[in-house]
Amino acid sequence: MSDRKPSDRKPPPRHPGGKPFDKGRPAGGHPAGRRRARRDRDLDRDLERDLDRDLGPDGPVILYGWHTVTMALQNPNRHIRKLFLTENAARRLAEDNIAPRLTPEIVRPSQIDQRLGPDAVHQGLLAEADPLPSPDIETLEGEGLVLVLDQITDPHNVGAIMRSAAAFAVKAIVTTARHSPEATGVLAKSASGALELVPLVTVQNLARALTALNERGFMTVGLDSQGSENLSATPLRQPLALVLGAEGKGLRQLTRETCSVVARLDMPGELKSLNVSNAAVLALYIGATRLGLMGGSPV
Amino acid sequence: MSDRKPSDRKPPPRHPGGKPFDKGRPAGGHPAGRRRARRDRDLDRDLERDLDRDLGPDGPVILYGWHTVTMALQNPNRHIRKLFLTENAARRLAEDNIAPRLTPEIVRPSQIDQRLGPDAVHQGLLAEADPLPSPDIETLEGEGLVLVLDQITDPHNVGAIMRSAAAFAVKAIVTTARHSPEATGVLAKSASGALELVPLVTVQNLARALTALNERGFMTVGLDSQGSENLSATPLRQPLALVLGAEGKGLRQLTRETCSVVARLDMPGELKSLNVSNAAVLALYIGATRLGLMGGSPV
Repeated sequence: MSDRKPSDRKPPPRHPGGKPFDKGRPAGGHPAGRRRARRDRDLDRDLERDLDRDLGPDGPVILYGWHTVTMALQNPNRHIRKLFLTENAARRLAEDNIAPRLTPEIVRPSQIDQRLGPDAVHQGLLAEADPLPSPDIETLEGEGLVLVLDQITDPHNVGAIMRSAAAFAVKAIVTTARHSPEATGVLAKSASGALELVPLVTVQNLARALTALNERGFMTVGLDSQGSENLSATPLRQPLALVLGAEGKGLRQLTRETCSVVARLDMPGELKSLNVSNAAVLALYIGATRLGLMGGSPV
Repeated sequence: MSDRKPSDRKPPPRHPGGKPFDKGRPAGGHPAGRRRARRDRDLDRDLERDLDRDLGPDGPVILYGWHTVTMALQNPNRHIRKLFLTENAARRLAEDNIAPRLTPEIVRPSQIDQRLGPDAVHQGLLAEADPLPSPDIETLEGEGLVLVLDQITDPHNVGAIMRSAAAFAVKAIVTTARHSPEATGVLAKSASGALELVPLVTVQNLARALTALNERGFMTVGLDSQGSENLSATPLRQPLALVLGAEGKGLRQLTRETCSVVARLDMPGELKSLNVSNAAVLALYIGATRLGLMGGSPV
């Protein structure tokens, strides 16, 4: 939801997947560790070289964490270039009967730590993969639910939204390529595997994309705290596109004007705005329930 | 919601409000800036001394960001010890007719940056305040909605949950003192002012707190993907306590056993688990709607 104040978080770092390796890392002093130290150095160099390559839109996507990597390994459309596993993670994959599809390089947890930074909970798995292809608006089915994100950049929020989208069987997420984050490590990690399930349609111009959706018969509903109608009381129909703006900025003027309806989420409390991923999941629940897409009886 | 894999994020840093000041910061080389540099140094020392003080449970709460600080300034129950504002922020407060209540120290944005670290979007406002008093379970009203958090530690998630709680007029949030984050800067910032609106009841033992709620007539509903009932189809009544577990770990065994009911959130998509703050807002919406607390017609 929106209000007039600046966004809560800064845009994601330019280099997805974390900072490059610390070249000055001590290489294991005691004699018994020397061979391992040399092997680690080689791997470090390997990983480092990868990071020196172009990490632009066609560069590798960095995936880490149990759900994120195992879902990618199980997605036949996902091309994985490299797979780094700790011994524990490799064992756990074997126990869960997940085939790694390519020969993993076995690393120590600290090596992944160093690559991703101290805050990334990678659980011993890191993969470099090709991005998934971005479908065209014209190929979207004329039914069900679609989400449209207007300049939402925070990767935790976009990841959480993708996860909710996968939980509500959303057909696609349409985002502006320029302002949304690349499918970075943080986004992928927050999405917890949803990156493999929900097609991401990246567009240059959101108003044009909304116009295309309108022309293809979508009902396009913008969510905004200043909306003229309450979403829960708005007649909805399929195919439905729910349009969310960034926290702080809300929907841009042209986005708002291009939507069929601009609706608000009425809530009984004193605060009238939610975290954007919270607003998204609520809109999805209301939309899916009212369209009879929940697979059960409506509340 | 829960599954068996480890939590998505690491616990919050031990020092709320960010890292201590960088003592080696250059102090403004050009002659014209010398007086300002000295003033800044004094302020830095001031802020640094504050951080050297005990930041334990009774230490100051660090609040930053527009919503967070302005809501605190407007909360008569919040005792603010110190207020640091940039000139722009001071002007904006004046324009919005928000009285600062105490004489602010005017600082440059970079000084707040240095205190909070580069990722904190403070918008020129930083306050040191006393924590709000934690009410007892025994003082909770016997109506409406309460949220109970079982070892949810990620401050972004707890902050987002508090924000949703304020939006749904939740009466209180019960958390385990040991495992939930202190009301740190990140939590307060993510809560976007909700810290001033929703009482936080910190307890040592969650099962005992749930038993107390049960004895006080609350219906206690645990949320878990393995729940025996679908929340949307579960008969609910007031007063209602919705109990959420940490991502990855879910509800602890004893928590689950102490709840009146353990329910799941049914969703039509392939992924069956949500980000915990997304699960919380959905549970709140379903609860508030079914209890007739939305102030409008139910969906």
